[in-house]
Amino acid sequence: MYKHTIRKILRRLEKREMPLNKAFNLLKDLPYEDLGFVKLDSHRQIRKGFPEVVYCGGKSPRHIESIVNRLIQKKGPILLTRASAELFDQLKKGRPGLRYNELAKAIYAKTPARKTGKGFTLIVTAGTSDIPVAEEARVTLDIMGKAVKVLYDVGVAGIHRLLDRKALLNKANIIIVVAGMEGALASVVSGLVSRPVIAVPTSVGYGASFKGLSALLTMLNCCSPGVAVVNIDNGFGAGYFAALINK
Amino acid sequence: MYKHTIRKILRRLEKREMPLNKAFNLLKDLPYEDLGFVKLDSHRQIRKGFPEVVYCGGKSPRHIESIVNRLIQKKGPILLTRASAELFDQLKKGRPGLRYNELAKAIYAKTPARKTGKGFTLIVTAGTSDIPVAEEARVTLDIMGKAVKVLYDVGVAGIHRLLDRKALLNKANIIIVVAGMEGALASVVSGLVSRPVIAVPTSVGYGASFKGLSALLTMLNCCSPGVAVVNIDNGFGAGYFAALINK
Amino acid sequence: MYKHTIRKILRRLEKREMPLNKAFNLLKDLPYEDLGFVKLDSHRQIRKGFPEVVYCGGKSPRHIESIVNRLIQKKGPILLTRASAELFDQLKKGRPGLRYNELAKAIYAKTPARKTGKGFTLIVTAGTSDIPVAEEARVTLDIMGKAVKVLYDVGVAGIHRLLDRKALLNKANIIIVVAGMEGALASVVSGLVSRPVIAVPTSVGYGASFKGLSALLTMLNCCSPGVAVVNIDNGFGAGYFAALINK
Amino acid sequence: MYKHTIRKILRRLEKREMPLNKAFNLLKDLPYEDLGFVKLDSHRQIRKGFPEVVYCGGKSPRHIESIVNRLIQKKGPILLTRASAELFDQLKKGRPGLRYNELAKAIYAKTPARKTGKGFTLIVTAGTSDIPVAEEARVTLDIMGKAVKVLYDVGVAGIHRLLDRKALLNKANIIIVVAGMEGALASVVSGLVSRPVIAVPTSVGYGASFKGLSALLTMLNCCSPGVAVVNIDNGFGAGYFAALINK
Amino acid sequence: MYKHTIRKILRRLEKREMPLNKAFNLLKDLPYEDLGFVKLDSHRQIRKGFPEVVYCGGKSPRHIESIVNRLIQKKGPILLTRASAELFDQLKKGRPGLRYNELAKAIYAKTPARKTGKGFTLIVTAGTSDIPVAEEARVTLDIMGKAVKVLYDVGVAGIHRLLDRKALLNKANIIIVVAGMEGALASVVSGLVSRPVIAVPTSVGYGASFKGLSALLTMLNCCSPGVAVVNIDNGFGAGYFAALINK
Amino acid sequence: MYKHTIRKILRRLEKREMPLNKAFNLLKDLPYEDLGFVKLDSHRQIRKGFPEVVYCGGKSPRHIESIVNRLIQKKGPILLTRASAELFDQLKKGRPGLRYNELAKAIYAKTPARKTGKGFTLIVTAGTSDIPVAEEARVTLDIMGKAVKVLYDVGVAGIHRLLDRKALLNKANIIIVVAGMEGALASVVSGLVSRPVIAVPTSVGYGASFKGLSALLTMLNCCSPGVAVVNIDNGFGAGYFAALINK
Amino acid sequence: MYKHTIRKILRRLEKREMPLNKAFNLLKDLPYEDLGFVKLDSHRQIRKGFPEVVYCGGKSPRHIESIVNRLIQKKGPILLTRASAELFDQLKKGRPGLRYNELAKAIYAKTPARKTGKGFTLIVTAGTSDIPVAEEARVTLDIMGKAVKVLYDVGVAGIHRLLDRKALLNKANIIIVVAGMEGALASVVSGLVSRPVIAVPTSVGYGASFKGLSALLTMLNCCSPGVAVVNIDNGFGAGYFAALINK
Amino acid sequence: MYKHTIRKILRRLEKREMPLNKAFNLLKDLPYEDLGFVKLDSHRQIRKGFPEVVYCGGKSPRHIESIVNRLIQKKGPILLTRASAELFDQLKKGRPGLRYNELAKAIYAKTPARKTGKGFTLIVTAGTSDIPVAEEARVTLDIMGKAVKVLYDVGVAGIHRLLDRKALLNKANIIIVVAGMEGALASVVSGLVSRPVIAVPTSVGYGASFKGLSALLTMLNCCSPGVAVVNIDNGFGAGYFAALINK
Repeated sequence: MYKHTIRKILRRLEKREMPLNKAFNLLKDLPYEDLGFVKLDSHRQIRKGFPEVVYCGGKSPRHIESIVNRLIQKKGPILLTRASAELFDQLKKGRPGLRYNELAKAIYAKTPARKTGKGFTLIVTAGTSDIPVAEEARVTLDIMGKAVKVLYDVGVAGIHRLLDRKALLNKANIIIVVAGMEGALASVVSGLVSRPVIAVPTSVGYGASFKGLSALLTMLNCCSPGVAVVNIDNGFGAGYFAALINK
Repeated sequence: MYKHTIRKILRRLEKREMPLNKAFNLLKDLPYEDLGFVKLDSHRQIRKGFPEVVYCGGKSPRHIESIVNRLIQKKGPILLTRASAELFDQLKKGRPGLRYNELAKAIYAKTPARKTGKGFTLIVTAGTSDIPVAEEARVTLDIMGKAVKVLYDVGVAGIHRLLDRKALLNKANIIIVVAGMEGALASVVSGLVSRPVIAVPTSVGYGASFKGLSALLTMLNCCSPGVAVVNIDNGFGAGYFAALINK
Repeated sequence: MYKHTIRKILRRLEKREMPLNKAFNLLKDLPYEDLGFVKLDSHRQIRKGFPEVVYCGGKSPRHIESIVNRLIQKKGPILLTRASAELFDQLKKGRPGLRYNELAKAIYAKTPARKTGKGFTLIVTAGTSDIPVAEEARVTLDIMGKAVKVLYDVGVAGIHRLLDRKALLNKANIIIVVAGMEGALASVVSGLVSRPVIAVPTSVGYGASFKGLSALLTMLNCCSPGVAVVNIDNGFGAGYFAALINK
Repeated sequence: MYKHTIRKILRRLEKREMPLNKAFNLLKDLPYEDLGFVKLDSHRQIRKGFPEVVYCGGKSPRHIESIVNRLIQKKGPILLTRASAELFDQLKKGRPGLRYNELAKAIYAKTPARKTGKGFTLIVTAGTSDIPVAEEARVTLDIMGKAVKVLYDVGVAGIHRLLDRKALLNKANIIIVVAGMEGALASVVSGLVSRPVIAVPTSVGYGASFKGLSALLTMLNCCSPGVAVVNIDNGFGAGYFAALINK
Repeated sequence: MYKHTIRKILRRLEKREMPLNKAFNLLKDLPYEDLGFVKLDSHRQIRKGFPEVVYCGGKSPRHIESIVNRLIQKKGPILLTRASAELFDQLKKGRPGLRYNELAKAIYAKTPARKTGKGFTLIVTAGTSDIPVAEEARVTLDIMGKAVKVLYDVGVAGIHRLLDRKALLNKANIIIVVAGMEGALASVVSGLVSRPVIAVPTSVGYGASFKGLSALLTMLNCCSPGVAVVNIDNGFGAGYFAALINK
Repeated sequence: MYKHTIRKILRRLEKREMPLNKAFNLLKDLPYEDLGFVKLDSHRQIRKGFPEVVYCGGKSPRHIESIVNRLIQKKGPILLTRASAELFDQLKKGRPGLRYNELAKAIYAKTPARKTGKGFTLIVTAGTSDIPVAEEARVTLDIMGKAVKVLYDVGVAGIHRLLDRKALLNKANIIIVVAGMEGALASVVSGLVSRPVIAVPTSVGYGASFKGLSALLTMLNCCSPGVAVVNIDNGFGAGYFAALINK
Repeated sequence: MYKHTIRKILRRLEKREMPLNKAFNLLKDLPYEDLGFVKLDSHRQIRKGFPEVVYCGGKSPRHIESIVNRLIQKKGPILLTRASAELFDQLKKGRPGLRYNELAKAIYAKTPARKTGKGFTLIVTAGTSDIPVAEEARVTLDIMGKAVKVLYDVGVAGIHRLLDRKALLNKANIIIVVAGMEGALASVVSGLVSRPVIAVPTSVGYGASFKGLSALLTMLNCCSPGVAVVNIDNGFGAGYFAALINK
Repeated sequence: MYKHTIRKILRRLEKREMPLNKAFNLLKDLPYEDLGFVKLDSHRQIRKGFPEVVYCGGKSPRHIESIVNRLIQKKGPILLTRASAELFDQLKKGRPGLRYNELAKAIYAKTPARKTGKGFTLIVTAGTSDIPVAEEARVTLDIMGKAVKVLYDVGVAGIHRLLDRKALLNKANIIIVVAGMEGALASVVSGLVSRPVIAVPTSVGYGASFKGLSALLTMLNCCSPGVAVVNIDNGFGAGYFAALINK
């Protein structure tokens, strides 16, 4: 929505060509709001199907608080990623709707919504250390109104744990594979099913894992087609992408 | 399908517990066929919804020819990627069904099939040099029975070329963005639409593009959610992934 | 100014070939002063149009203090970058002219000066986390006597926020684009205007952003001409370069 | 210029609200032209002050030829970079205005234009192997109507060659430094003058120069402020940026 | 064997403390021979259990020829790796014992030897393009007198091909896994068996495989213990290491 | 062991085709146990010859405690790597069998077992800073019932320290070389013996050692055959691999 | 000195073929001493002209203390690098001869020695932040009995500071250049003199300096011959190398 | 020598304050000569002790020819590195003094000169493939009038070949170690002697040698002090540096 559109609306209102009610409805969702330093992209819900998600890394608590206040007024769903427990302790006072997923380090508020989309997304992790990233994906899908199931700790070192759950894999609509170290799980899962696999490399590992680079390269070079990759540790991005697919 | 399953079938047949017809039907699609060095994964059509695609890079023409012969016998669709014009000249003799997409460097044979899936996938390129990778995606989607449209040469250096086609972007079900150099197009497209964007970095560029690394990193770090990435120059992978989504 | 020049001046003075006043004026700005370990390049104001800026990273507070004392005596403008709040608390005692920009982490003292140069430099950031780097650029331009405007949080994820301000972009003489993550904003801005764009990659991001490498490569590979790049997080360098252009 | 603007013009013409001449003038410069695969961005001359430059790397001669034909019709200046001598031999037939700079590998056609901008840009190279990149910058500045001087082979291994020309350095308005290997020349030049220095790393070198990476990093870490960097071997980008500064 | 040892032998011979025959036997295998530029390490057979293998990359045919002549005189086994068909054509004239494995690009001569060691080494490849590297390992093991079996083209994209051969995997004493692209096969195989797995990354792949780097990192980060890695494409090294284990 | 196998056993039991005792024995070792988030791979002892080793990096103490409880019930050997002294203090209460190797940062419990395998593994370090990684290997071999000897601080800077112990090197069955900085020790040791050398690069070093990358590359490029490499600082992996060889 | 030599000495002593005094003298400097984990290379003074230097990074204070005690007994010079002030506080008690250079973070004890070698080594730094590394080089040269002069803070950003001291540069026998950021100073100094230049890259800088990688590559690619490079921040290595030259 | 010095000489000549002969002698060696594009640094012989060496990589034969002509007129020594046999065939016509070292790819002309410096430099290579780089160092030392010996093919895979020649190593004044692959030879040699070791990494190797990067890092991280490193394959640089030491 561009400013000239807004001017046009106002001019039509001025000329009485448009009733006040209609103008109000058109205008109430200005494309973004200026909260001091932040330009809250409130039109995103229309454009992208989900309000702006707040990445807390490197933002001051004060900024985050003012954003959260505005999002609560808008009565939409709320999602803050990479949020510390301290931040939640500060924010939850006087804001009873906020919840915290400690593993995912996500603060969220869910508006009462019915599930949309078909079937469910299955989130699979290679090890237990990959679970925080997986939980970030789960929270994201949950708040976007999508059904989710999880299957954790089924890495390729003991592949029978995975093969044993082939039925579950085949029932899923979309599969998110979260794996660090060598990240081989994405290839194996993708070879077993005919569903899109969203691969999330994690920074789990040491030495030549180079903070997720190893898993990232593995997933990009996946010899089985049907895999696409998001950034290292980006559980939110994987969940969001899965939700877009399952619209 | 495991060997012991096959043995069970044979034993039941032997014991006359199963009619020959049923046994034949069960057995005719052995999970893979041994063509000398190659283990053709003929079960993949059932498992993944599409027969094994032949990546020609580094394979001897003789091997490729024997694979193609077997695929023709199976009467399924055929797709050979990274195939030179010379290879096509050799293969087309006596195999009238084969076609060649020169830009995509893909040899294919399409079985008469009706389109499946909803809507269409839109393939967008930043520049004209990215078109070969985009065409590989197009051929893949086409042979998998999915509708495709293209929008080429709309890179961010002249962003009005892209904004002008916002209507087309919004109509697409899935968008594949193919871009080299700085790869910024994926972020911009993703910010404009509420559809999943599959980003394909290309090796187009010079100097600090480091053969696609620059575009790859850009796309992985996309600040707009809703983007997933495949390998550098992997048009086939993007097309295949889009087809899986649009099942 | 070389030592033999100085000796020549002294010899001419000795021989009474030059009045004392002229000698004094020639000599008062020795090319550098030896403050113990530091060789303060006091001639730089003549040579480069601005006195030596003090980068505080890795310098001991004691060294910094002695440099500041000397700069105050010279009555020129003062700029200390990457300075902590603690450092400022220590330095401000008894030095009332010093100011601190908390976001930019810059300590400065502005001599009363009239603005020089034509028009203004516009500093644009992709996100709110990029603002500290942008502020470093702003302080630098300000102290060098150049007009500045800012446009923060207009990243490509919601490109209408940028397009909406096209008029402002077109009025600017020079544009500094500060962006982390994928750094795509520089390409988009450069495609919209006919002004030089100075791109500053920031270390904002995670995973495959590799502490600014991703944004750096994006900006170097910019497909739209008219972009030049400075070091990661180098807001000072961008501001200084812009001031040199706008002399 | 968006399509709806065009439709509005046409509708006004249809309704006789606008004289044909005015409509023609408004419409004659459509923002881009569709030459088959290429979307020629013909509006760029207005937006950026210079028509689209054709990067020949990876483009088919047939595509390039059709673009050139269209550019000749438009009677604007023409610049093709990374163009082989073979390509020029093919293009020059029947197009007498085309010229070739063999060192720069640039094909160009200069419309009779008077020089604009103040002063001149000085292009400095460290060695003789850096000259092709420098010549690409020179051709670009020349065709954009800017005065240029060159100072070649003055690398830091024999720094007196550079110091000897300090007067020339100080007279220049803008300096482009082209250097491979360790790329130290940019730092030294920038320390000597108070003009903006545009640094172009080249891929000249061997071993740990890693095809220009060494020079690139050197230039980005320049300890003397007043340096901005373009991509490796990007002489065109440096020339273009200098021309934008000197508008 | 050091020179002073040799002198001691000679002195004892001189003093008649040692019979000539014994001295001859001790001396006949001098630790290395000087063939002009090459110091042929002929003692290696005693020290390492296998004569010096000739890596042909970057050696002149003339040098190689003189080395081969000397090795033939010594009547030991011969192995030349990375040898072109042209080189073999040149060497085989007048040297009937030489053989060529075209896939492995290895020239060899086998002395009649009985197999040593227990069980067999199994060489597994992910794809058909990995076979040349696997064959280099096979030739090496063969010439060192070890039993070998191969299982080619069983990559994780169709993991049933591998699981189907679990019995064979469990019978092997040592397993060499050869894989390019994402190299995930080593992890999966290692998870299935209790035998040492030697992983060989190959340069098969494109884009972000970075010529084997991706597979190398994957294998180094293998989450299943029991995997050790050799250099990219180093089939010889894997075979040699397996032979040392199976002594 | 797959679930359908289990169902078959149960069905046969139900039909009285199998005595209860036999069914019990078959079932008592389910392939893995679900301890909440962790899927303990208890079948691994059969499959790999050693129970699952617990890598403590990034796991919560509570998770580790529940795993340890379960392993104690199973009465198998226990090994926890990268375990802090704090963790041990917490775990040792009420679990008298647990031991702690402070250098190796390993918690373990050894079941009374007789040594298996032939000869001994020799662990060699280049410097004293490499000892923690070596000790991790030693603990691993020890708990797996293998004989170990150590030879520490014999790096190539004083190669006589190593040559002096050639007899010991030659007596070893397998040699593990642990080295940081330039990692040259693996090459030298491998050149001296005819035993397999397992090389462990360590992150010991500074500057261009890049946290172990330098030693890793050195070891992968080892000019002497007979060397295979594990991940940086992966003492456990080296010990485990050595134990598999010496079965 | 090998063990068999020692045994020979002992046997000759036993057989009275050698007087006890001579045996004692031969034996008193065993090539290394076993201090528990550390093998102190006490023969190094003969072999390398300087006793083993103790790099304190990653060593426990207890180990360091036992090494120092032994070195004091040997009455040779002592040098401990990368030593914290805390370590010195602990070591200096009861060891009056120890000194501490706080900038260099070096603990040392100088035996009364006359200077050896010709002329002096000049240590030059680009900035003040490079001084700690330079001081490490200075301490090393000093304790090895070589004359040293320093010239700090003469980086290329103000090259007149360096040119002004050309006489000093030309008088030096060897020059050590210590520089971070872009490291260009080594090239410039080398171009001015006919003496060997030892370049030490430092980790001073930020962003694309990548912790010294930028300066390292610059110095390796130095276009002026006569430069050799040591590891990042390795002041000790540079000093030691200079002392070897000036023997 | 600066221009104002020259002007001063001329002025003194004009005023008859200086005899013509003296002026001529002062002026005849202008600091550089302008041969079109090349600025021949003819003063370098005075400044650096050796005339400018011509690196032929990337220079046109025509440019090289004109440089050579000028160098012949100056009657100094001549050295052209990285020169092809074709180039030599072209240059040798009519220039009888030119010689070609095929291995080193060096063209040179030696003026009759007596050896200077003390002792000799020993050039050591790890393998036979490293010899071309070693020969470039040898030619350089030779033409600079220094004594050289070589010891080729003594890599660490068979370390007795090296230990056997310890006497030769100890006699050398300076040692140049040339090694590719893992480059471990420099560490071992440096541990054996008390002479400065100049290490030259070569691009010999494959896979994870990354064109010399592996050897380069090894040599930079050398745990034995007394090693300094030049660029990959830079035999000339090593020879030149050795000659400067041995002045």
